[in-house]
This record gives sequence, C-alpha cells and structure tokens, in this order.
Amino acid sequence: MVNFEGKDEYPKKYFFGSSCAGLKKNANDVLLIYSEEPANFSCVFTKNSFPAAPIIVSKRVMDSSNKVSGIVVNAGCANAATGNAGIKDAEEMIKAAMEATQSKTPFLVASTGVIGIRLPVEKVKKAIKKAPSSFSIAGEEAAKVIMTTDSFPKYCITKYSDYSIFGISKGAGMISPKMATTLTFIVTDAAATNEFLRKSLKKAVEKTYNRISVDGDMSTNDCIFLLANGASGTELTGEKAERFQRSLENSLMRLALMVIKDGEGATKIIRIIAKGFYRSDDARAVARAIGDSLLVKTAIHGEDVNWGRVLAAAGKTCLPFDVEKVAILFGDTKVFKGEVQRYDESSVKKYLKGNEVVITFDAGQGKEKFEYITCDLSEEYVKINASYRS
Amino acid sequence: MVNFEGKDEYPKKYFFGSSCAGLKKNANDVLLIYSEEPANFSCVFTKNSFPAAPIIVSKRVMDSSNKVSGIVVNAGCANAATGNAGIKDAEEMIKAAMEATQSKTPFLVASTGVIGIRLPVEKVKKAIKKAPSSFSIAGEEAAKVIMTTDSFPKYCITKYSDYSIFGISKGAGMISPKMATTLTFIVTDAAATNEFLRKSLKKAVEKTYNRISVDGDMSTNDCIFLLANGASGTELTGEKAERFQRSLENSLMRLALMVIKDGEGATKIIRIIAKGFYRSDDARAVARAIGDSLLVKTAIHGEDVNWGRVLAAAGKTCLPFDVEKVAILFGDTKVFKGEVQRYDESSVKKYLKGNEVVITFDAGQGKEKFEYITCDLSEEYVKINASYRS
Repeated sequence: MVNFEGKDEYPKKYFFGSSCAGLKKNANDVLLIYSEEPANFSCVFTKNSFPAAPIIVSKRVMDSSNKVSGIVVNAGCANAATGNAGIKDAEEMIKAAMEATQSKTPFLVASTGVIGIRLPVEKVKKAIKKAPSSFSIAGEEAAKVIMTTDSFPKYCITKYSDYSIFGISKGAGMISPKMATTLTFIVTDAAATNEFLRKSLKKAVEKTYNRISVDGDMSTNDCIFLLANGASGTELTGEKAERFQRSLENSLMRLALMVIKDGEGATKIIRIIAKGFYRSDDARAVARAIGDSLLVKTAIHGEDVNWGRVLAAAGKTCLPFDVEKVAILFGDTKVFKGEVQRYDESSVKKYLKGNEVVITFDAGQGKEKFEYITCDLSEEYVKINASYRS
Repeated sequence: MVNFEGKDEYPKKYFFGSSCAGLKKNANDVLLIYSEEPANFSCVFTKNSFPAAPIIVSKRVMDSSNKVSGIVVNAGCANAATGNAGIKDAEEMIKAAMEATQSKTPFLVASTGVIGIRLPVEKVKKAIKKAPSSFSIAGEEAAKVIMTTDSFPKYCITKYSDYSIFGISKGAGMISPKMATTLTFIVTDAAATNEFLRKSLKKAVEKTYNRISVDGDMSTNDCIFLLANGASGTELTGEKAERFQRSLENSLMRLALMVIKDGEGATKIIRIIAKGFYRSDDARAVARAIGDSLLVKTAIHGEDVNWGRVLAAAGKTCLPFDVEKVAILFGDTKVFKGEVQRYDESSVKKYLKGNEVVITFDAGQGKEKFEYITCDLSEEYVKINASYRS
C-alpha cells in the first residue's frame, strides 16, 4: 500500500484509490478518498429542491458524525430522482467504503452523471472494495475518475512547510451559483475544528464557486467537501488560520476557473465586473444579468463589440440608474458613458480575440462591486447538450 | 389615397404607409400607421432600466395626450442609449408624422434595431413625409417593414360584423416576459375609453406576451400599442366588451406564437405547463425555470427524453416539494412520479420529433397552474447572435 506520504507535496495520511464499476466506458468511475486518521470536515450542498440521494445521505452523515474516514464517489450515474431505493444505494456505498478500509467512522458520498437511473449497486460495491488496492494513484488520476463531460482533470495543490492543501473538482455544464456547483473535494493535513472548517468553507465558496456560471443551470448533485485530518500536527489558529483561509480561497478559485475554462463549448472566459453601486446585492444582480445573458455570451463568442447588449442585459434587473453616469468598458476601453463614446473599434475587436475578456459596468453611484465569471456560448455547447444525456 | 375601407376586413379609417430611409438594406424601414379620426389608446412598455428614446417619448405622449393620430415606427436602428440627442430625434419623428398627415394630435413612436447608434434623422423625416403616398399597403407589407431578424411577417386580423381588430408584431430574439416584449401594434375601429383600453391591454398582455420567451433577454425598446378610433360606431360595453377582450387576447396570442415560432434558430415550440401548486407565483416560477433552462432547451432540440433536466431545472427555484407527489409528463406520457416510471422510450422519442412539445410538471399539491411558451435552443441561435449586431 503506497500512499502520498512519499510524495511530500500531498497532505499526509490521505490515500486515493480508483476502480471501475462499468458506469463509464473504458474508464475508472469509482473514487475512494481515505484518511487514515478520521478527519474533521465541512460540506456545502446544492440548494436544488430535488437533491440527489448522495446529497441527502451525506447531509445525514454531517448531522450524525463529528468525523469522517473520507469520501466515496462515483461518476456516470447521479443517483438522483431515484427515490428511497436510491438513498439505500448511497448508504450501501458508504458501508462498502467502510468495509474496504476497515473504518469505524463513516464516509461522505457523492455521485455525478445521468439523472433518473438507478445505480448498479452491486457492481459499485465490488468496485469500492477493489479501490484500496490502487491507493497509489496520483492527484491527476483521482481528478480523472470524477470527470463526465469535462475535457481535462481539475486539481490543485498548495504546499507549505507545515501542511498542504489538495483539491479536485469536476464540472463543465449545469454550473451556476446560488450553491456549491460541481463536485469539489479538498483535503488538508492541517488540524481544525468542524466549526472553523464550516465558516472557512462557507466564506471561501461565497467568494469563488458562487461567482461562476457556465449556463445558469443548477445540479441536483452539487457539493463541496473539505476534510482536515490534522496529520501534519499544524493547528489552524491565529495567523495560520488567516493563511489557510487565503489558501483555501485561492485553491477553490483555481479549481473554479478550470471549470469555467472547461465550460461546455467555451472558447473564452468572460469576467463581468459590476461596480459603482450603493448596494452590493444590486452589483451582484447586474453582474449576473450580464453574465447570464445569451445575447452577451453569443456576442463575445462572435468577438463583437456589442455593448448595447450589455446595457440591455443590465437593464433586465429593472433597477433605477442615472444613465448619464453609467459607463461600460471592454477591457480598458470605455465604449459607453451616458451615450456611445468615440473609441477605436478595431483595437477593441482585437482585444476580444483574446481568450479572456473583461467587461466592466460602472453604475457611477456608490462603492459596492461584484465580480462574476462565465464563458462564451458557442454552437458547440448546443451540440454537446443536445446529444449528451445529463 | 387608397385606404383599407375598400378591403372590408380591416378596421375603418386606418391607413398604413411605408417608405425607405436607408436603415435596412433594400427594404422599407419606416412605417406610418395613421388613424383619420384621432384614436383612444393604451400602451405597455418595457420595464428595462435603460428604455430607448422612443419609449421615453411615447410615455410622455401617453401622459400629455388623450388621443393619438397613429404610430410612427422605424426598423434598423433602435435609437437606444443615444442620450438627449436620441430623445430629440424621436420627437422629430412624431413632428414629421404630424406634418405628413396634417394632424394636430401626436403620434406614438417606436424603433427597433441596433442599440447605440444615432438615427440619421433627416433621412428618417424625409421617409416619414413620403409614407402617406403609399397609404395603400396591405397588412402583410406593414408587418414586413418592422422586421429585423424575423424570417416572416407577423400579423392577424379578426373581423366581426360590427368592427375589426388588426395587429402586427415583430421579434425573434431578445424575447422574455416581465414586460411587453417585441414591438406589437393593434388597431381597432371599435370605440372604447382610454381607461377600458388600459385595463384590457394589461390583462391581455399578462396572458399572452408575458408568458413567452425565446432567450430570456429583455429589450430596451419593447412596447405594445393599442388604438381604438371608434370609426365603426360600435361601443365596447357589456357583452361586446367581453367579446373584445377574448378577441384581443386571441389576437395577441396568435402574434405571440408567431414570435416564438420565429424564435432565432428555433425548430420546435415548447409548452411548459406547471400545475398542482398552492400558489400561482410558484407555478410561474417553476414554469419559467424549466422553460428558460438551456439544458432543457437543448435536450428538446436533440429530441432527448431528458426529464432529469426538467426536474433539476424545476429544483433551481429551491421551492419545497414533496418529491413523492411530483410528476413529469412528456405529452401524455408520465415519465416521472416520485421516481422514474416505466414508459415506452421509443414512443416518447417519436413524440419529441413533432414541432410542438408539451412538458407538464405536476407538483401534486394544489390547484394553481401556469403555462409558459418557449422554443428549443439550436446551434443556429448561436450562429445568428454571434454575427448579428442587435
């Protein structure tokens, strides 16, 4: 049994194993993340009215247990809209993970894939039991196991002298804020209380995953799990707590950007900065209205300096503005301030050819702002989603 | 000067004329709707935070005048985000229309086309003055003048023995409820007070244009104008008022369906029926969440029986449901009731090949329902909007 302790950039006493239950074609689809020392943890779950069975079961784990032995995940079947039978299947996955690792504390469970199909639970259990035999896989391989329409594995690692943080994520469509979005798992060998982890994760998600969108759709299975097993002996207090917070936010943002970059059919990242508002809620509403506008997303895809659509989309909020004070910038170029500005269209067109576009909407009122990150909308998005059964 | 009185299906004493100001390529782009007898009227305007100049000016007409002589419209330039200069241009259009028809009462004004470009107002005025020389054009030709990305003209006529209703509409993208959506003009030779017309139009729009969506985007220029010049001598009171209401709703629904049918890149109409709710607002929220979901719209485009996306989209509302009671139907086939149902996938797939798809979401709680009409999302939508400057 080889673990990550040999590769000193990984958090201590975590083991990643994978195997194949036949849910994905010719690829491993079951991932077992095991912490040799039961870990403190916190979770953020989707707010969807119809949470999938693993979400329901992981919530129960959170309510009934102070520690977990790790996370058991499958890709290829969401185990969503599967009724009580599905809940039993998710519980069986936890049981199999505990047996496979001879753990007494439970696991968190997550699934991703097609909605409305029962898990072939016997096959999945068999695969879970086989997973520990591959406890040597690297982070990249772990990230690959949870991929569905993703085109590349998403993982990141941060190593300090006294502890490390490692995270994986998946997602390319059905991504929108108002909850966790995507499956994301973060493990650290720092030591922290559940209360600390809960506050820390909530704050970090608010600043990262809750600000991204691919298509404005929300999944039944989204969750972010954070585990801290304390194996490094480093307690997260004082300055160390602050450094951890920055580092967690940084890790989540790196993963979130990978998700956007891998947005189905996306060719460009679009950053919407709504600023100059009296109320931050208004800044958020305007940034989202612009970032979720199909007309804005297609215009940017077409590399068109179409600030008129940005203005119209912001106006969808029906908020009151003093139009004379409103400015719109594409990159550094002011294209609108109360009315159209003189600008060099060819240089802005050239700017739009880049793979990251910043659109700033300045209400010209107060000091509140909100940044929202999305991607363009291409024919390819439609092609993928007209054929893939999610 | 030929008018519609010769063609007895049209409302009496209305004249439609068109001409070319060079805003569209090789097509007439200015439309003058003239009522020989000043007409009572009512309007519904976009709620967008950045209303275009013609919206601002038409609101002023509504506030300052009890009657109008008609409607003056241009296509090809939205006269939006054009500041005070744009407002002056819209006022000039009204002045030109009044001069061209020697009217003492004002006109309503509307524009559609690209945002953020000044009107070439001298050319537009010249075209308006020429319009009366073509006062013989038929309804279809009038509807053609206001087309932008529309692929066919949208008009409808209802003839009773005692009066008629005639309407035209335009729109294919940037269509979403919460306001009027599209330019739509309805004229009748029945007689009614402004108060009656206001209530009647508001109610009819709520049941028709406020229930359709192509892409969830809201325009700066949307408006619906209703004119009643009383030339038929028929007063809309008692039963006649009720018949008029039904007829107005019917006309608006016919026009609204034409807009959806012409939705950019659309290949299918999708009717979302959300029923079984305690609160009608919840039914509306769920119908819209499903109908606005890109994943649902692309799945229907791909003719995929993907009820999982319907469930996930409904769940985006974060409303509480008793999932055991929730049912989803594609056409008449129940595909979900608490969990997936046994159904003949091939027959549902065949159903989805049709050009109209009905998706029913039954919350299984109360008696409130809401119907929402949209279209599928195709690669063609993206292609159109990545290249067309709206």
